Amino acid sequence: MSGQASSAGPVLPVAVDAMGGDKAPKEIVAGALRAAEEGFAVVLVGHPDRMGDTGGLPVIAASEVIEMDEDAGRGVRTKKDASLLRAAEAVRDGKASSMVSAGNTGATMASALFRMGRIRGVSRPAIATPIPVLGSIPTVLIDAGANAECTAGWLVQFAQMGSAFATQRFGIAKPRVGLLSIGEEESKGSPLVKEAHALLAAGEAGPDVNFVGNVEGRDVMSDRIDVVVTDGFTGNVVLKTLEGSMNFAMSAVLGAFGTNEDTRRAGEVLLPVLLPMATELDPETYGGAVLLGVDGICVISHGSSSSTAIHNAVKVAAAAVSEDLVGRLASAVAA
Amino acid sequence: MSGQASSAGPVLPVAVDAMGGDKAPKEIVAGALRAAEEGFAVVLVGHPDRMGDTGGLPVIAASEVIEMDEDAGRGVRTKKDASLLRAAEAVRDGKASSMVSAGNTGATMASALFRMGRIRGVSRPAIATPIPVLGSIPTVLIDAGANAECTAGWLVQFAQMGSAFATQRFGIAKPRVGLLSIGEEESKGSPLVKEAHALLAAGEAGPDVNFVGNVEGRDVMSDRIDVVVTDGFTGNVVLKTLEGSMNFAMSAVLGAFGTNEDTRRAGEVLLPVLLPMATELDPETYGGAVLLGVDGICVISHGSSSSTAIHNAVKVAAAAVSEDLVGRLASAVAA
Repeated sequence: MSGQASSAGPVLPVAVDAMGGDKAPKEIVAGALRAAEEGFAVVLVGHPDRMGDTGGLPVIAASEVIEMDEDAGRGVRTKKDASLLRAAEAVRDGKASSMVSAGNTGATMASALFRMGRIRGVSRPAIATPIPVLGSIPTVLIDAGANAECTAGWLVQFAQMGSAFATQRFGIAKPRVGLLSIGEEESKGSPLVKEAHALLAAGEAGPDVNFVGNVEGRDVMSDRIDVVVTDGFTGNVVLKTLEGSMNFAMSAVLGAFGTNEDTRRAGEVLLPVLLPMATELDPETYGGAVLLGVDGICVISHGSSSSTAIHNAVKVAAAAVSEDLVGRLASAVAA
Repeated sequence: MSGQASSAGPVLPVAVDAMGGDKAPKEIVAGALRAAEEGFAVVLVGHPDRMGDTGGLPVIAASEVIEMDEDAGRGVRTKKDASLLRAAEAVRDGKASSMVSAGNTGATMASALFRMGRIRGVSRPAIATPIPVLGSIPTVLIDAGANAECTAGWLVQFAQMGSAFATQRFGIAKPRVGLLSIGEEESKGSPLVKEAHALLAAGEAGPDVNFVGNVEGRDVMSDRIDVVVTDGFTGNVVLKTLEGSMNFAMSAVLGAFGTNEDTRRAGEVLLPVLLPMATELDPETYGGAVLLGVDGICVISHGSSSSTAIHNAVKVAAAAVSEDLVGRLASAVAA
């Protein structure tokens, strides 16, 4: 894919899975339309009769849908005409540059992996999720949930891929890569983390990876670090914990505004200041996570994605293609 | 210890490690004094010449200190007269009812384990940390960091001990116990979590444990669950992540207040409403975590503990003694 992606010629469209997500198809189609209005090439994938008014966007027909809570493995095995599989095939077959889905995450990963294959040398694809940091560049969390069990060697590859992604996505020349543990000392952590620490400290990830040692959960939302490497179980727990605590904090503040007439007025004064922060912290702003290591671009948006998230996800996918993320990842893991 | 703790006779003092914590000895001694003024029996443990004015509190002399960032294993092996070891020995020898420390967590655990021993039948002691939930009873997170690698059988014991602790500490008759995973389906998670799920679902924890299935990171701060069971690596990462994100949210809100004169005034109106919330969410309010499974009460306070945290930790320790937490835990793991 990488060669194609950066070659000259007509720009291939981003394939958007119109059927995936809690707000599909309406918000998904609306997000794709917004991206198209900005000049991005987009193709919708889904059942033509079930996606409403597509505003003239091109469509790749797919008669089936893998539901949000369906078993991912069974879904991709039994629903050969699923929108997710058709989107991944479009990328494989050179009919789309990349894919975006807010659908079943497991099925999205499986579709991309089975249809696009892996980049040569990659042991396991991993999910890279940008974690918002107020007033600073987001931190890339990798693996945010693709591999519930990992080897130390895979974590070394996650460091390589996460670093290359942070450079492509956020323009960080030499991203600071930390290994998530329960103490900064190299003696702290699980056997997996200690082994990965030893490999990374020995330079196994190559000269392009700026390994700065262990980091802790509190560093994820800080500007002390650019890439946090962890296994997919811990990474997914961290992601969901952050999601929960941010919702919690927001409810607490909004609840305080509603206490009485005075606090309501104070809240009105503060909202114009707080809203831009909320936007900066909103995962929708970043358009979603990217599955790194498959031989093509696959953006995984949050299940609750609105049109804004999909709009941003299309931009993320298009930039990853034009900036040859797949080629960068291939070079990174070959180091 | 459990028999002693609930027997009649003079109330034994809570042994407070005066030398442990970022703000030791000043804030520690001040917290112990506040508890004593309320009628709690307290004994300070530390170097008599290095703890300042003790206000007449009794002292158990200990000439050494295991520093905050010192290797825990080496500390307890080489510093036989360390305040932490002397505190644990006081509990073992019936000179104190329980111990409290804001010092080196690893050394606190090792001191308690080596000097008090384990409750019969307990495979591994684990740290139970109350996670604040706004407007509701805290959630107990277990293990919050004692065991970086666990077996499924230990997680079953954590469910038993965490449930008994939630009943003693927060008066929950039948605590809802969840297993931390990356999806609610039993098919989700690491091999460890799947195995633990199978054991818990089969009733291996006994009839007193109300296992409600897998929970996710976002549930930890919710009122959907009372006890969250996980390995000590994941638990510690969750704890630090929550700590980081709450600090982050608080800075963001305070930062918004400081934007201009109008927002400053609005902030002044809101502070009286937000401060009680901040207190409710402040881990200091809960006085610290409890090491469950050792044959005595050991309260582990946050390294940054102020006198308020220590004051509350003494109350937590005294209540655990008078309500026979050790006896409850022994019954729970025997189920």
